[in-house]
Amino acid sequence: MRARTAPVADVMTPLPIVEFYFDPISPYAWLAARQCARLDPVGRLEFRPVLFAGLLSAHGNKGPAELPAKRAYTMRDVIRCAGRLGVPMRGPPTHPFNPLRALRMCTALDDPLKRRRFALALFEAAWERGLDLTDDAVLAHVAADCGLDSAELLARAADPEIKRRLAEATEAAIAAGVFGVPTFCVDGELFWGADRIDAVLWRLQGHRTDEALLGEVLARPASAARKP
Amino acid sequence: MRARTAPVADVMTPLPIVEFYFDPISPYAWLAARQCARLDPVGRLEFRPVLFAGLLSAHGNKGPAELPAKRAYTMRDVIRCAGRLGVPMRGPPTHPFNPLRALRMCTALDDPLKRRRFALALFEAAWERGLDLTDDAVLAHVAADCGLDSAELLARAADPEIKRRLAEATEAAIAAGVFGVPTFCVDGELFWGADRIDAVLWRLQGHRTDEALLGEVLARPASAARKP
Repeated sequence: MRARTAPVADVMTPLPIVEFYFDPISPYAWLAARQCARLDPVGRLEFRPVLFAGLLSAHGNKGPAELPAKRAYTMRDVIRCAGRLGVPMRGPPTHPFNPLRALRMCTALDDPLKRRRFALALFEAAWERGLDLTDDAVLAHVAADCGLDSAELLARAADPEIKRRLAEATEAAIAAGVFGVPTFCVDGELFWGADRIDAVLWRLQGHRTDEALLGEVLARPASAARKP
Repeated sequence: MRARTAPVADVMTPLPIVEFYFDPISPYAWLAARQCARLDPVGRLEFRPVLFAGLLSAHGNKGPAELPAKRAYTMRDVIRCAGRLGVPMRGPPTHPFNPLRALRMCTALDDPLKRRRFALALFEAAWERGLDLTDDAVLAHVAADCGLDSAELLARAADPEIKRRLAEATEAAIAAGVFGVPTFCVDGELFWGADRIDAVLWRLQGHRTDEALLGEVLARPASAARKP
């Protein structure tokens, strides 16, 4: 009997998909995007643009920029994290800003590699180069630098069909339990935050969350609640 | 001229203080407390009990347990983090629960080492052994296991003076910008989250946040806001 060898199909098994939900408004999404190549050897990243403000509204949550103490802390933490990662930070000229046009341009790019490259360039423009992503001239310049037809991409971002696709993608993310950005998703399991890339790698290495314990914990009741 | 040697006073310089704001209601405060000994070689930990619900109310924030999607995610993440740290997790019989008595018992312990030991025992009881910290019998048992006079400690927890001290400590934390637990504080600088111990170590090793950049970023205006 011959020694068993792995059939060719095993070698060709595609990498598991890692969905990456992002909005360029989020500095933590920037820090995550900056490190996402760490996942390339073990997962196939899919960049999923979603409107962070839509996630907040749907879940009745507040964003860090909406609470003064948390805004001050968040920017401090982002500056520390960027410094420790060795990434230059400047930050956009205004924040929060309206990210809709930038998100719609991402949505309009069906090719996953083009979308990823453009999304990374948007993050770099806003958070490393201090550019204004609400300015069409800036968006056109970033697109052109990525080798894209910027006039066509800006036109598509104004197309009702693209607007609808971004809204639907945001709704689908909400339905999947996504409440913030960045969020990674592997086979339905969520990982929230730029500091959870190690946990995504752990998952892709074959480790699993104790779902039985999770079910037990979530089934337990509350015995106290804050007054509304 | 003789070679210069460090004067004895330098050798005796006390370690910098690291304040650790906690509430046993928080599983992330448990995970941070579980790892806090990592800071002992470079900092003097001071355990500061505060009422998490009071922080939320003051800042107009919502706790993770108050948003269904975030509650489910948080427990999943806590189970993953505990598993990756090799810490056994069971979780309390109800959650959220009323942590006031447990917090007041911590507040009543003036000796920092006794307070730390009791706080760690409370976290272990709730999150590793699945015990109910709203039950006086449990609290008495945990205190006795720490070599404390449990009847006296429970009596002190009902003392208006101790209740006032916990309320004042919570107010002082809010004034210092603390909005969640666990929070570490080094010389006024905050570090929020069980995943920020490395950043605290970085700070204690002499690194500093770029305060000029932070001031600049925080001074920039918003150009968009969600509809209320």
